[in-house]
Amino acid sequence: MPIPTRNDCEQWDEADPLASFRERFVLPDHVIYLDGNSLGALPKATVTQLKNTVEQQWGRDLISSWNQHDWINWPLQIGAAIAPVIGAKAHEVLVCDSTSINLFKLISAALKLQLPSNRYKIVSERNNFPTDLYIMQGIAELFDTAVELQLCEKHELLNAIDDHTAIVALTHVDYRSGEVSDMAAITRHTHEQGGLMLWDLAHSAGALPVELNRCEVDLAVGCGYKYLNGGPGAPAFLYVAERWQDHLPAILSGWMGHAAPFDFALDYQPDNGIRRFSCGTPPIISMAALAEGVQLMTQADLQTVRQKSQRLGDLFLDLVEAWLPEHFDIVCPRDCNQRGSQISLAHDEGYAIVQALIAHGVIGDFRAPNILRFGFAPLYLRYVDIWDAVETLRQIIFNRTWDDARFKTRAQVT
Amino acid sequence: MPIPTRNDCEQWDEADPLASFRERFVLPDHVIYLDGNSLGALPKATVTQLKNTVEQQWGRDLISSWNQHDWINWPLQIGAAIAPVIGAKAHEVLVCDSTSINLFKLISAALKLQLPSNRYKIVSERNNFPTDLYIMQGIAELFDTAVELQLCEKHELLNAIDDHTAIVALTHVDYRSGEVSDMAAITRHTHEQGGLMLWDLAHSAGALPVELNRCEVDLAVGCGYKYLNGGPGAPAFLYVAERWQDHLPAILSGWMGHAAPFDFALDYQPDNGIRRFSCGTPPIISMAALAEGVQLMTQADLQTVRQKSQRLGDLFLDLVEAWLPEHFDIVCPRDCNQRGSQISLAHDEGYAIVQALIAHGVIGDFRAPNILRFGFAPLYLRYVDIWDAVETLRQIIFNRTWDDARFKTRAQVT
Repeated sequence: MPIPTRNDCEQWDEADPLASFRERFVLPDHVIYLDGNSLGALPKATVTQLKNTVEQQWGRDLISSWNQHDWINWPLQIGAAIAPVIGAKAHEVLVCDSTSINLFKLISAALKLQLPSNRYKIVSERNNFPTDLYIMQGIAELFDTAVELQLCEKHELLNAIDDHTAIVALTHVDYRSGEVSDMAAITRHTHEQGGLMLWDLAHSAGALPVELNRCEVDLAVGCGYKYLNGGPGAPAFLYVAERWQDHLPAILSGWMGHAAPFDFALDYQPDNGIRRFSCGTPPIISMAALAEGVQLMTQADLQTVRQKSQRLGDLFLDLVEAWLPEHFDIVCPRDCNQRGSQISLAHDEGYAIVQALIAHGVIGDFRAPNILRFGFAPLYLRYVDIWDAVETLRQIIFNRTWDDARFKTRAQVT
Repeated sequence: MPIPTRNDCEQWDEADPLASFRERFVLPDHVIYLDGNSLGALPKATVTQLKNTVEQQWGRDLISSWNQHDWINWPLQIGAAIAPVIGAKAHEVLVCDSTSINLFKLISAALKLQLPSNRYKIVSERNNFPTDLYIMQGIAELFDTAVELQLCEKHELLNAIDDHTAIVALTHVDYRSGEVSDMAAITRHTHEQGGLMLWDLAHSAGALPVELNRCEVDLAVGCGYKYLNGGPGAPAFLYVAERWQDHLPAILSGWMGHAAPFDFALDYQPDNGIRRFSCGTPPIISMAALAEGVQLMTQADLQTVRQKSQRLGDLFLDLVEAWLPEHFDIVCPRDCNQRGSQISLAHDEGYAIVQALIAHGVIGDFRAPNILRFGFAPLYLRYVDIWDAVETLRQIIFNRTWDDARFKTRAQVT
């Protein structure tokens, strides 16, 4: 295959069925944003929606907005809007809290359910996202000797799942390598062993079609601020399959999960259905932003999003292989069907190269110890952006631009 | 004392040292808002602050804002701004999650610390706020037979605290009666018995001076959306006395509480200090609103706020007693030193009366079974507002306006 030219990219952009989405985002000039997998861009409609929520709803209608603008049901409504994106039923998804807290809720609830059957193991992968691991470690400490956390390598996973396994908790798309796990097969195997299956969809939701129902997944959590474009630290979501909703205890049993919170009853009585996994009062302003991001996302066809995401990734890798052979290890899968919506390259000077790219207007990120990570949000990225990004990378490598002290100083957050 | 006239109220407003704060809030026309204890009003500066956070920080600077605008430290910075309002040191307060979740964190951490010393009891009052009770019930279930939740009446409290008490968890100002508990005396008694003391400051922070350090309080939680005017469902805060910070485990051990979250290390290593009580990524947009509300609050002298709050409450009660004798039971303390920044009246038709008041532009709220609750936010309420509110109440009672089916239909949320 000939090396794609910038002109090829321009033609692909013209033919792109998702092209019109780009103008619905605020994007800074002279920036190619390849970090939508870390923080999605701002939809223009969100600016209007937030103005309305703040000035009309909070400012003018004040406390009555809980009824009048139905704030009280936003966690369910935004959850229902996310549901088709992840292959769930509308009443199986709830927006609340953070991914970390939702992991705590669901894993500890699964343990409470499974411990009486002598199922005391949480099984996960050592390369799961750190907060997932930390939350599991915290749960294991909380339950003390009653619970065992078993972390393993990917190739050891299936053997680690046995008849003492309470729950298997994995991330669908690996945050470093971008590798997609086989949700159907691992879930099936976990069920055959009698375990519950939880998937973290942080790097999946909005990036590729997820089929929770078809794969018979029990539990899931996910993130609002990446491909759902819900804003920095947007509330997260959780999924509980219908069949488990009335069986799992609400461990963080706050008033918003009560069957009748405004009765102010003395005793906790969990609501039926997904709402019991609510805890405290939801942050309405951040939720308004998430609602708008999800609303925009759901107007795109997810198969089309996935196809474009794969082509963007392949284009990036084709150019890297053509222009920069032997400069990087490609640590993401080369096969786009095995890959999420990101490319990961390894390089000993990865940190400095990412900083140099940022200084030249190409925003990717670095993940320790040596990974350059580039995420592709198909709603607002063009093929020419990829071409220009790799061209910038080529110049930085050839000119050793990165070999400058100012790019080597570590910031607190990357 | 003669009954105050509206003219008296106008003169008090003219002499009010806090008068200039009112114009810094968005307040709807023709509304007297006596529900700032449920949802504080919108500061005008918040509109600008949110526009900046959304359009400049998120929209333009994208992911770099975590460093560039120091988003990563907002939980500490806003906590430090709240600290003087509650009598704490700057590094003892953290903004994060919801009040319910923070209660879970601190109570379960206290239990982990105390259980090895055969201290297994959580002691609280039966009339504590429901979510506090629900969270404690959830913790007691999670710990199973290892933990006992002992709920008692106020007069039984001191006797209930004994050498098996791990933690005493109370709310400082009762959400229904408005009664203020004796923080110093109860904390001292709890310490004498070897227990840890937690106060929920939901109805205190920003309404009256709180002296956590002087009272040697161990732990506290509080709410951002009431007297701190942080917006609907604003993030909450927690306080951990310096002496406990490195001893209490982080039960919800998410990555934001890790000593080095961006090292993506395999093992959880809690940060030193208050940050270890963080969990997931904070909802930045809601936090920006809270920052502005707190900033405004801290420009007022809290003693002056308290004095005005007490005068507003006394004025309300004086007028009710003068104009509506025998129509209501006054269920809040008559002595303003025993009372938070609210008035509570009991009436069998309380729900309908509150609805009729709302229809006539006086916003209070109803708390089951029969309480009419009126909160006073001294930064934006005037003495004439109180006079007008009680005058409206008088007319509703005398004309039996409330005795209309449309005011008796219960809404989902009140």
